[in-house]
Order: sequence, then structure tokens, then C-alpha cells
Amino acid sequence: MQKPSVPKGTRDFSPVEMSRRQYIFDTVKSVFRTYGFAQIETPAMENLSTLLGKYGDEGDKLLFKVLNSGDYADGLTADELRNASKICEKGLRYDLTVPFARYVVQHQSEISFPFKRFQIQPVWRADRPQKGRYREFYQCDVDIIGSRSLLNEVELVEIVDSVFSRLGINVALKMNNRKILYGIAETIGHADKMVDITVAIDKLEKIGIDNVKAELAERGIGAEAIAMLQPILELSGDNSQKLDKLESIIGGSETGRTGIAEMRTIFGYVERLGIALPVELDLSLARGLNYYTGAIFEVKALDFAIGSICGGGRYDNLTGIFGLPDVSGVGISFGADRIYDVMSGLNLFPADVDCSTKVLFVNLGAGEEAESLKLLAALRKDGIAAEIYPENGKMKKQMEYANRRAIPYVIIIGSRELETRTATVKDMRSGEQIAVAFDSILDAVK
Amino acid sequence: MQKPSVPKGTRDFSPVEMSRRQYIFDTVKSVFRTYGFAQIETPAMENLSTLLGKYGDEGDKLLFKVLNSGDYADGLTADELRNASKICEKGLRYDLTVPFARYVVQHQSEISFPFKRFQIQPVWRADRPQKGRYREFYQCDVDIIGSRSLLNEVELVEIVDSVFSRLGINVALKMNNRKILYGIAETIGHADKMVDITVAIDKLEKIGIDNVKAELAERGIGAEAIAMLQPILELSGDNSQKLDKLESIIGGSETGRTGIAEMRTIFGYVERLGIALPVELDLSLARGLNYYTGAIFEVKALDFAIGSICGGGRYDNLTGIFGLPDVSGVGISFGADRIYDVMSGLNLFPADVDCSTKVLFVNLGAGEEAESLKLLAALRKDGIAAEIYPENGKMKKQMEYANRRAIPYVIIIGSRELETRTATVKDMRSGEQIAVAFDSILDAVK
Repeated sequence: MQKPSVPKGTRDFSPVEMSRRQYIFDTVKSVFRTYGFAQIETPAMENLSTLLGKYGDEGDKLLFKVLNSGDYADGLTADELRNASKICEKGLRYDLTVPFARYVVQHQSEISFPFKRFQIQPVWRADRPQKGRYREFYQCDVDIIGSRSLLNEVELVEIVDSVFSRLGINVALKMNNRKILYGIAETIGHADKMVDITVAIDKLEKIGIDNVKAELAERGIGAEAIAMLQPILELSGDNSQKLDKLESIIGGSETGRTGIAEMRTIFGYVERLGIALPVELDLSLARGLNYYTGAIFEVKALDFAIGSICGGGRYDNLTGIFGLPDVSGVGISFGADRIYDVMSGLNLFPADVDCSTKVLFVNLGAGEEAESLKLLAALRKDGIAAEIYPENGKMKKQMEYANRRAIPYVIIIGSRELETRTATVKDMRSGEQIAVAFDSILDAVK
Repeated sequence: MQKPSVPKGTRDFSPVEMSRRQYIFDTVKSVFRTYGFAQIETPAMENLSTLLGKYGDEGDKLLFKVLNSGDYADGLTADELRNASKICEKGLRYDLTVPFARYVVQHQSEISFPFKRFQIQPVWRADRPQKGRYREFYQCDVDIIGSRSLLNEVELVEIVDSVFSRLGINVALKMNNRKILYGIAETIGHADKMVDITVAIDKLEKIGIDNVKAELAERGIGAEAIAMLQPILELSGDNSQKLDKLESIIGGSETGRTGIAEMRTIFGYVERLGIALPVELDLSLARGLNYYTGAIFEVKALDFAIGSICGGGRYDNLTGIFGLPDVSGVGISFGADRIYDVMSGLNLFPADVDCSTKVLFVNLGAGEEAESLKLLAALRKDGIAAEIYPENGKMKKQMEYANRRAIPYVIIIGSRELETRTATVKDMRSGEQIAVAFDSILDAVK
């Protein structure tokens, strides 16, 4: 019989991976909660009508579609059977953003706006699996919807600061503003080409300034316009200097000026609140998704080479696709898999995350077991994760079990220990053994 | 535009439902952890070869199948397109048991047996949706695999006791043993009809003894055999009396005797450990799934009419289907949706579960906001879930927001409060307002 396996691009999470992932999610959640965000969940399956057309043609192809249940082929011609939309009505969630927009529209009458929600659930994409890219992965989104206040952007900056400092990851936050990008496009006379320009700028770090210029030319931007762009791409100084310089160049664009004012407000808050996180205006930041309309964010780990580990931005019309216009929101998404890789790579997980059980009682026979069970109950009552080896087996085997499970304390109660009412407590890391009276065991392992 | 919706039989979980569900899961998880169980997760999609044939013909029909990505119809005839197994290789997880068996076989070399795992994930079934029955719902399973010790059964009894007493639900645990049921079938001369007999007995409570007898006759059990069964169905007394009486009837069956001995051992532990939970031997308990081979469990809420809210049992060959024979395990599953219904029905959720934010600062202008932000940061630093209304808006609107969000404390800092450096703290439940010096706010809302 062939050994069973999981579908390609999907993963099992074993106990140690799970506790590490849970440690990340618990940290993130506890920060979200402190900021007043509430959790929601949406179904894994959405109607295909909800999902299709929201992620571009490429995205549509990457949706996992669920075959209609019952006689899916009933009454269909061969041609119809070749049309996925005839045999599938549902698809698996591709991200958390579109389901959230659907949720807000569907539940608008129950929601108190501004609505602060977070959502941590898996999403599925029929992408070609490769290193670090999976067909099932968790997203972890936090959004405030129904408020245009820039205080919301500032709150997300604080959340980024708080999450990564709790996790022990040194990060820098890069920010930009879509209105500034539009102002630039407008100023160089190519307001209609904002998407091309931002896509090209987005590649600045990857392909360098000369290639970006070549790409801009290819996209029909004239030499003169490209020349006007040059000083913007090479902007230097602190955020406030950059914004001043920028204003002198694109100040003629009203949208551009608004974007600059927004960033001044946000940076002003960040300074006054004394947020320790380095926040940098980076005009090369554009972010792929076209629904962003204001401030955009991206977080990079400083001590580990990996793409962005968190990102997001302001969107003015997320729910418009479902018939509810003019609801502005801002949100960011934490990349759990990459954060996991950074923390593993830099050894940032606390040691006790890996050990699920703190104490193991070895099992040396009926009388010994009976006494151990009493002591075990006392430890558990105190919230200590403890267990007893369920069978009276060889000591060596039981010790091996403790070792493989990374259980730090083993308590041995044999006939001698029964008589003296003192247990032998072995520290599995140091190998040290001490004798502890039965009624002091709780203190010894605490 | 039509208001968007979710696929039938699936649900969104809004903030209040989420915190209540989370409260249940957190309670259950913390008990599991205290007993040394570690969490795993498996992918939502499994290969159909893993799932098919494991749940009977009825179950196969209820699997949600995922259409192959890319050109699923490429090179297929019309007939082949009518065959789901030609166009789908993957399906959504139907329960957590089969994926767990697959997991154990796939990862056997990494696992330290006995393996104590829990798993809390959604499952999907293309069942006809109805009240209390969904197409997506969470299962919450806890199993010990790789140990035949009855101490494992006892540990599950303790877990049931601990979970439900923490949740505040009064329950009774009914237990039986498949070996006893086999012993009964053997004794009445129908060892081959054990499944028919147990299915009929399982209905005792629902349809009454006369109907059970009729059903047994229909299934080919003779009148004499049914007569022998009668005293077994009418067994009374405490567990030990029932087992004694039972032994006098089915003691000729070796398997039956083993089952009786197992239950004596389990009940003996339960008594010696002083477990408060009422545990009752109930011979009418059979449980539908045929893979159980020893003790079986079912938990009923005592103060709320609903089916069983937790159940499980011992299985001797779960992983045999994937080529790893002779791995015995025992496990139970908690029904999150039903537990939720019981707790809602009996008003058992703690009041603070419903409030995600404890403190709201109203926003009355730039200077007031600046001061509020400092105080807000101090509260959050102390782990208090707090927020500021992000816009300087009408007081009435901000108060309404606090009310709808069930936020218990509102802090008002206006120009007068700024001057005196005392905030007005309003208790939203009592309506009471008190003046609190800025530096005492933390104590006032703690």
C-alpha cells in the first residue's frame, strides 16, 4: 500500500510547528484585542459570483472551484460540462479581503461603524507550489472600515510596532500614499498612466533605476516625463524633508498635495506618540493591488532577507463591488508563514513554546501509579501541563518518550519513593536528579 | 444589485458569536493542554483517494469535491466528464478522524507514541442543511493513539469532567463497551449480527423497547434470542451491579468478559480518583460508527434538551486503512455548535465574553484627542482593550457607538477636563459618571 500524502502545495502542521504558529497568532491577536478589534470568521466556500472578477483574470484562474453536489452533470451537454461555471457554484476563499467586503455589505445593518475587525483564516490558491509558496496558507488581516480619520492609519502603525516588538523582530515600516503617486503621474503629464508608473516604480529596488526607466519608456512614457521623474526617485533626507521637496515638485496637483498633507498628519502623530518603530516615506512603494487609494504600508524585517512580512493600505471603495459605495477603510495583513520563517531563522521563538508537556510521571506499577495519579491531579489543578506514561513499561522507553517530547521534568515514583513519600525529580535538560517530598512537588516544577 | 450572501448551510461568525465560540475553544484547549495533548492541523483539502470509501456510500456522496485546476476537461470524453473522479482529485475534509489516521501513518517516524493530539478545525459535508445542521462546522477532537492502557479512557473521562465543569454545563457521561455488545450478540447466538443488534439497541431511547424488538425481528433475530436480550435491555442498579448481572448472562463469551473487565477497571479508576462527573454504564449506547472496538462514550447535557454534545470511543485499527495495522487509540469529539447552543440557551456565557473593548475615549477635538491618546496608550500598555473614537464627531453618535459595541466604560475629556486634568468616566451599564484624575484612570477602569 502506498503511503498516504497530502495534496501538493498543502501542509500538515505537527505539534511543534503548531505551537510556534499559535505563538505568532496569539501575540497578534492579543495586540489586536488591546486596540479594540473584534474577530470574525467567514465560510471557506463563497459563491463563485462573490469571488469571480475580483482578482483579475489571473486570479480567476487560481480559484479552487467546488463541484456542485448531487448529480452535477444532470441535463448538461458535453460543451456545458467543459464550462466550470456550469458545474461549480462555489469556490474556496482566495483572500480575506473580498469575503470581508461581502460580509460588511451583507451585515451592514448589524455593524456599528467604524467597524474594527480582524480575521485569521486559511485561503487557497491554485498557484504553482514552490519554496515559501503554498496552495493553502493563513492570512491574518486587521481593518478599520467606515472612518476616513487618519488616526486609523496611525493605529495600524502602532499595531505593527507592538506586534513586532513583542515577537522580537526588528523591522522598518515603509509608507507611501497612492495620492502622491497619482500627483506624480499627473505632474509629469501621464495621469492616465498612474498604474503603469506605480508598477514600474514598485520594481525600483528589484531591477534598479535604469531598468525602471526603460520599462517606463516601453509603457509609452516620454523622455521628458521620465526626466521629471528622476529627482523624485532619488529623493533623500528625512520624511519631512522628502515631503517638502516633493511638494515643490508636485505641488501643482491637488491630489498630490492632499497625499502630502495626509502623510504629514500621519508622521506628526507618529512623532508625538513617540512610536519607536522606524517609519520611512518610500516613494518606490506602490503595492500591487489597485484598490488602494491613500496611505500604503509595507514592513520589512531588518535582520533577515525575505520579502515584506506585513503590508496594506487605505481603500476608499472596497464594498462598492457589492453595491455599498463610499465606505472607506484601511487595513493591513500579517504574513504568518514569512513571520514564522524569520523567527525560525533568527531563533526568536521562546524555548518553552516547543514543550507542550512540562512534567511526566513514569509508570512503574499499580501502587506507584495510584500515588502518581494523585500528585498528577494536583499539578493539573494548578494549570501545569502534566501527564503519566499510560503503561507500566521499561524505564528506558519512558525516558526516551520524555526526551522525544522535550518534556523538561520527569518524576519517578518507585517502591522506594512510595515508602519514603519523596519522589525523584529529574531535570531532563541538566540530567540532575533531586529528591522532593510528595507535598513539595508543585513548588519544585513550577 | 443583489445583496451578496454565503452558500447555503454555511455561516459568517460575527464578533459576539466569535468571542463566545472562542471562549468554548479556549476552555477546551486549555484543558487538553493541561493533560499533555498537543495540537495539530491538517489541510482542508485531502486527496480523494484518502477520503473515498471511508464513510460508507452515503458519506462518499456527501464529500465536497474540488475541481482540478487548469484545463480540467482537457482530453476527456463527455462520459468521462460525467465521472467526478475524472475531473476532481481532491475533496474537502469530511471529519478529523480520517485525516488524523492519514497523518499518523504519514508521519509515523516523527511521532513519539503514545501520541496525544487534539485538533480543532472545520469540516464540510454536502448534507441537506437544516436547523442545527450545517455544511461547514467545526470539530474538536482529542485522541491518544498507540497505547492500549485503559488509563487513557480514564483520562478522557477526566477531560470531559473538567471541560464541562469549567463551562458550567451539568452533564452526565454514558459509557458502554463494544466488546460487551459483541458478547451479547454472541450469547444470543447472533455474533454475526452484532451491527444490526447494536443499531437497534442504539434506538432504544428514541423508539422504545417494543419497536426495538420489532426491528430486531425484522433483521432476522429470532424470538428466543430477543427474549434473551430483554433482561439486558432492562438492566438496573449502579454500574457495578449492572456489570455483575451482565456477567451472569454473557459470562460465557470471552469477548464479553473482557469488555466487562475493562469497564470494571475504568469505573474503578473513576471512583478512586474521586471524579465528580456522573458516569453511567448504558447498554443502549452503541454509537453509529463501526470502527469502535472497546469503550464508548457519550455526554448529555442534563438541563437542556439536545442530542449528545460529546462522544467517542476506543478503536483498534484506525490506521489500518492506510497500511499501518495494530495501532490502538481512543478519542472523543466535542460538538462545538451544540455546546454553543446549550450555553446560549442556559445563559452560561460570562458577561465579559461579549465585550471586546473595555474603554472608549470620546473624541472632542485636537487638544482633547492628544491628551486622550496618551492615556489610551497607558491603558493599552497595561493590556486593557481600549480605543478612541477616530473622529471628532457628535457626542451622541459616539455614545451610541459605545452602546452598540457594549463597551462598559466611556471616558470623556473635553476642554473643562483638560483644564482640571480630570476625566469624566461613565459606567455605561449603570449610567453613573464620576470624575477621575488623569493619573488614576487605570485604577478606575481595572
